[in-house]
Amino acid sequence: MVSLKAYIASSLDGFIAKKDGSVDWLHAEKYQLEKEDFGYERFMESIDCIVMGRITFETVLQFEPYPFETVPVIVVSKNPNYQIESKHQISIFTRPLRELVPFLETKGYQNVYVDGGKLIQSILMESLLDTITITQIPILLGSGIPLFGVTENEIELKHRKTQSYPNGFVQTEYEILK
Amino acid sequence: MVSLKAYIASSLDGFIAKKDGSVDWLHAEKYQLEKEDFGYERFMESIDCIVMGRITFETVLQFEPYPFETVPVIVVSKNPNYQIESKHQISIFTRPLRELVPFLETKGYQNVYVDGGKLIQSILMESLLDTITITQIPILLGSGIPLFGVTENEIELKHRKTQSYPNGFVQTEYEILK
Repeated sequence: MVSLKAYIASSLDGFIAKKDGSVDWLHAEKYQLEKEDFGYERFMESIDCIVMGRITFETVLQFEPYPFETVPVIVVSKNPNYQIESKHQISIFTRPLRELVPFLETKGYQNVYVDGGKLIQSILMESLLDTITITQIPILLGSGIPLFGVTENEIELKHRKTQSYPNGFVQTEYEILK
Repeated sequence: MVSLKAYIASSLDGFIAKKDGSVDWLHAEKYQLEKEDFGYERFMESIDCIVMGRITFETVLQFEPYPFETVPVIVVSKNPNYQIESKHQISIFTRPLRELVPFLETKGYQNVYVDGGKLIQSILMESLLDTITITQIPILLGSGIPLFGVTENEIELKHRKTQSYPNGFVQTEYEILK
């Protein structure tokens, strides 16, 4: 069975980035804690591939070093002709999202990290997301790129656990009820 | 010294009510826990007056029984001619918000509960809010009346404590840094 998992940080007012896409506020020195990665490495060890929106992937490609050397990345685009060259382990998925889970099954993936604001929203709207871990940063940005979009229907979640950190981060894991 | 405190519930996507103002979702039976009020009574015992926006007050006035019999309510309106008749302990404040704290001081109030979505936003924007306790409900409403509004400046918060409840509520108290 394939499980799709989002793992993301947001400001307390629900933004994952400023309007220009920047996440500098998230990496501010005041939030750094020695030897503390807020569960990220453990989460990464639990997944066997990343499904990533095109915009996020093209941003990540500019990072030095490339952060996902050891894990396959599936880049999702709505453009059926989308192509991108990369020396990393990537594949491209341009089919409808409802075909994503069967695609992941044929590849043998079970624990899938869903990354990228728009992709998380789309996968949530298609009722495909299984869990979401949100790390809330103690800041109000006032505007920016929202984690959650407008949806027609209410979505119920089941709380799994909450942990707070000495820097004020509050991390909560929810299961999405379907 | 006067301390202004907000204490409010929001959906995980940041709404305090549906578009029509309803909070039925918040009072759903599935969230009820026997003998658990999520700290509300303790909070109410800690305050000596409520500052409430006009819209919220006019809604509350329709409740049977009126819920604030034992605590003075100061109704805030921008309309200098605003008047409302009530048999309860209320007063009306129509002056600029920056005059609110001196007004509360003259009355001898120290721990003030700020209630009402718009009033919380206005008091936050005027850098007058001291603490906010947010109880996040495990639901995505998709749309509604937002807890936080658009602000020009970032606002930093200091995390005080987080508590989760068996019904999935996650309650976090923040101090607002000025």
